Amino acid sequence: MKDKSFKQILNDNKLVKLIGAHDGFSAKLGEMAGFDAIWASGFEIASAHCVPDANILSMSEVLHAAEVINNATNIPVIADCDSGFGDINNVIHMIKLFESRHISGICIEDKLFPKMNSFIGESQALARIPDFCAKISAAQDTKKTQDFMVIARVESLIAGQGIDDAVNRASAYVRAGADAILIHSKQDTPKEIFEFCRSFKAGIPIVVVPTTYYKITAQELSDAGINAVIYANHGIRSAYSAMKKSFASILENDSTVAIEQNIASMQSIFELQNMGAHVSNHEKYNEKIANLF
Amino acid sequence: MKDKSFKQILNDNKLVKLIGAHDGFSAKLGEMAGFDAIWASGFEIASAHCVPDANILSMSEVLHAAEVINNATNIPVIADCDSGFGDINNVIHMIKLFESRHISGICIEDKLFPKMNSFIGESQALARIPDFCAKISAAQDTKKTQDFMVIARVESLIAGQGIDDAVNRASAYVRAGADAILIHSKQDTPKEIFEFCRSFKAGIPIVVVPTTYYKITAQELSDAGINAVIYANHGIRSAYSAMKKSFASILENDSTVAIEQNIASMQSIFELQNMGAHVSNHEKYNEKIANLF
Amino acid sequence: MKDKSFKQILNDNKLVKLIGAHDGFSAKLGEMAGFDAIWASGFEIASAHCVPDANILSMSEVLHAAEVINNATNIPVIADCDSGFGDINNVIHMIKLFESRHISGICIEDKLFPKMNSFIGESQALARIPDFCAKISAAQDTKKTQDFMVIARVESLIAGQGIDDAVNRASAYVRAGADAILIHSKQDTPKEIFEFCRSFKAGIPIVVVPTTYYKITAQELSDAGINAVIYANHGIRSAYSAMKKSFASILENDSTVAIEQNIASMQSIFELQNMGAHVSNHEKYNEKIANLF
Amino acid sequence: MKDKSFKQILNDNKLVKLIGAHDGFSAKLGEMAGFDAIWASGFEIASAHCVPDANILSMSEVLHAAEVINNATNIPVIADCDSGFGDINNVIHMIKLFESRHISGICIEDKLFPKMNSFIGESQALARIPDFCAKISAAQDTKKTQDFMVIARVESLIAGQGIDDAVNRASAYVRAGADAILIHSKQDTPKEIFEFCRSFKAGIPIVVVPTTYYKITAQELSDAGINAVIYANHGIRSAYSAMKKSFASILENDSTVAIEQNIASMQSIFELQNMGAHVSNHEKYNEKIANLF
Repeated sequence: MKDKSFKQILNDNKLVKLIGAHDGFSAKLGEMAGFDAIWASGFEIASAHCVPDANILSMSEVLHAAEVINNATNIPVIADCDSGFGDINNVIHMIKLFESRHISGICIEDKLFPKMNSFIGESQALARIPDFCAKISAAQDTKKTQDFMVIARVESLIAGQGIDDAVNRASAYVRAGADAILIHSKQDTPKEIFEFCRSFKAGIPIVVVPTTYYKITAQELSDAGINAVIYANHGIRSAYSAMKKSFASILENDSTVAIEQNIASMQSIFELQNMGAHVSNHEKYNEKIANLF
Repeated sequence: MKDKSFKQILNDNKLVKLIGAHDGFSAKLGEMAGFDAIWASGFEIASAHCVPDANILSMSEVLHAAEVINNATNIPVIADCDSGFGDINNVIHMIKLFESRHISGICIEDKLFPKMNSFIGESQALARIPDFCAKISAAQDTKKTQDFMVIARVESLIAGQGIDDAVNRASAYVRAGADAILIHSKQDTPKEIFEFCRSFKAGIPIVVVPTTYYKITAQELSDAGINAVIYANHGIRSAYSAMKKSFASILENDSTVAIEQNIASMQSIFELQNMGAHVSNHEKYNEKIANLF
Repeated sequence: MKDKSFKQILNDNKLVKLIGAHDGFSAKLGEMAGFDAIWASGFEIASAHCVPDANILSMSEVLHAAEVINNATNIPVIADCDSGFGDINNVIHMIKLFESRHISGICIEDKLFPKMNSFIGESQALARIPDFCAKISAAQDTKKTQDFMVIARVESLIAGQGIDDAVNRASAYVRAGADAILIHSKQDTPKEIFEFCRSFKAGIPIVVVPTTYYKITAQELSDAGINAVIYANHGIRSAYSAMKKSFASILENDSTVAIEQNIASMQSIFELQNMGAHVSNHEKYNEKIANLF
Repeated sequence: MKDKSFKQILNDNKLVKLIGAHDGFSAKLGEMAGFDAIWASGFEIASAHCVPDANILSMSEVLHAAEVINNATNIPVIADCDSGFGDINNVIHMIKLFESRHISGICIEDKLFPKMNSFIGESQALARIPDFCAKISAAQDTKKTQDFMVIARVESLIAGQGIDDAVNRASAYVRAGADAILIHSKQDTPKEIFEFCRSFKAGIPIVVVPTTYYKITAQELSDAGINAVIYANHGIRSAYSAMKKSFASILENDSTVAIEQNIASMQSIFELQNMGAHVSNHEKYNEKIANLF
């Protein structure tokens, strides 16, 4: 339903930039800003529901959020599917549903179910390599279109298992059929990410999420051989600060007068809702029918 | 499930301040800021889905959003239920579901289905008074607890029908059983609202939404005899500006470095998710069980 | 996602037979029996939720039921969309969602919102012809694939408006773009349906629902120029009788022993659930991965 | 919202009889037949969605089905929650939601996630006793009303672990806080169930599901000290046979004429939908309002 799939965008661009979203609103703003694709972020979606990013939301809820995001935009959406919501059979069911709802691809990570956010705790347990490979293989067998992307996320560096484990896992996942590798890190420099890029040469796209090593530029990531960068949580973090500040101002000033100049107009929001087309549809179809008879 | 219902808060406070929300996140921020209650805003919820605020979302979707908002907070939630999603029978079904999901009250407006946002167009059609009274009466008969509030929203001023029509309608709605009157206006001063307050003396709470006449203070509203004020759309308008600015900065600077100091930390979001309790539950219950045997 | 769309089946068959369904289970049984397509029946879906067939369920709930039905079967599904869940804009939104979820077509009827089941009451109000034509036209402009069918249901005979009104309306709906006409009747003979068929010659498919004139054979309907027949409510009516009888037997006999021979085995249900493939997936993918390394 | 909770019914009756349901329709028929309570059956709900009874449906989907069932009836509903949809934190979230939606209690079983139906395979793996006790304890700490029941299902006999393991586990679960024990068996006689009852004397209710040992009467179960019996799958098995037969007849006879006498009338279904009250509401509230002015 989109002009281009995520796979096509990866082929067409030297570096693809994704913005994290949690609803149609944040996704639409990401598209309007000029990002190439949307990351339906598990962290952001959990936050929007005020529950921990740890498989408290069910697959149905993530699917629903991803569909709302997808329907709001004209650019492809990749869904953050944690560890696949269970075992092989859950992954198969998940692939059917996400592809059926026109999501452009999914990402699954090599942690256990229920997963825990990668920035919590020190040493999270990883899945056995063959178990995770089986999930990737089952996902590939299940998808109906070649363009639907199955991205395998390697958590070796998050779990403190080192570069060799990361490369070993990434290579196994590629053999099992992964369409791309997301290599995650929580260090404050991209050192280990760059090291991974030098060691892992599989000819498939590499994706990163520079949340903690944020000083790096996209250009530098691209130069290191990375194909896609996800800004996974900056929308909701921006919204948090802005709403907190506005809400405090309303109570402090006993009115909204102090914030009116800093916040979007009602009109801007109506435009994002696509209210104009909505209002004109009555006249449009009444005229059309009047001309018919 | 909340410490206090909206009705109790209205009784306890000279003026109740509600903040509009569209998801658990914005609602929680409203609670943290110190608002008394949450307005599950139709305008904001539609915006979060990127669809016009005009009954494009179904009742199920509004109910779901209201429940997410309610579960995220410890203060009461009033749901914006447009014109009641249809006729008397739809209102009856709606009351059952919203009360069952522990929403503290609902607000219905005297427009037709499908409704249109009050700031769009010049002269919206209003419901016939007896038809809307029948909805209010059916709502009252359906609710199971006295505390559940049925707020009737008068759109006379929005529709250009004048103060007399507003007072006439409000009085009829009170006779039909309304627990409170929401009087809406789109003027840039509170003049007509104040006029309404002088003419309408029914002894039940009056609620206002000062979106366009924003220079007024809550204190002045209270002095005019108003019992509750809803800041109905400032959360999402704040989020819009902040996300737009952050997203532009990321693309301009080729990294997030320029925004990191202005946006909430990951840690702040984890706290809002209540991640701490989540993480400690494993140890807590493992210990508890270990002590048992 | 299906081998054939409903439009293709209409082209390939002299007479298409649809069976009504309310969930994946009843739909799958319809497919197994040999029906050509499924009617996601508003009457049955409302019954499954124990609410009146009168737009008490929201569009979201009907959409969800239709998707469950669609995912359970390999034959096309037509969704009963009542009067379109509101006005033109609701129809546009509805078409986007149902087509996006791979439903093969929808049927809308020329009644007002909220609709009432056609077998209730004497003289239901119909929509103005241009208003309903506008919905059809908007539906056609919205759909993305030619194969997605917009079926217009004419309620003239139900409303006691006579054959001329029925033909007049059907002709107008065809001009507005209807892909097929469903002509409904609640008489106990097909007399007025046959009369309609003789008068209405538009070259597009005619669909009927012989709930009350049940003595007619499909062959006779086909001979009269009808292209599709919907058995719209016999699944749930059969289930009602069977469950009622079984439940009474359990309480009377103080055990299930008297019904065991008359009800399906657990094994039959597991087969319908596709449990065999589920169980074998673990071994299948474990082997596949074992061979890989 | 119900007259009596499941706990109250257990107190009031020597033996409580539950009927399995998968939607509002089957639940209502169970209530009409005279059963004391409804079992929102995981097996039946999975069947209604045409997916394996093996945690393919998410918690959200089971919750939704349980709510539909609950809203359709005036007798208490116990929800079959498999192994709790994950770990301790998933159980905590689940308890909040099911209790909030007015379900009268839940049952969790001592299998791993994702669970497999108890009649599939030979030797399913069970949870470690302390792990499952932690779930029970967390569930008890989370519930807000004493009446909400946490039923622990012991799968020792299903897994071939013998009576001693069953008694050992049941005793541990009672210490951890279980409100009742469901002891499951797949033998064709109640021999091992009776043996369990003789060995396990904890003073809390025992629940059984005589799917395979169906010749036993409820009276005999009661005499053996059992407090509640669940007929967990007979509704959907009855519906299967009836719909299969009707669907075949329609195609064989080229009409529904042969089944019309054997299936429920449209009128019976309208009554179950509560259509009468629906239709009369318009007149009722129009009159009420007319009298008001």
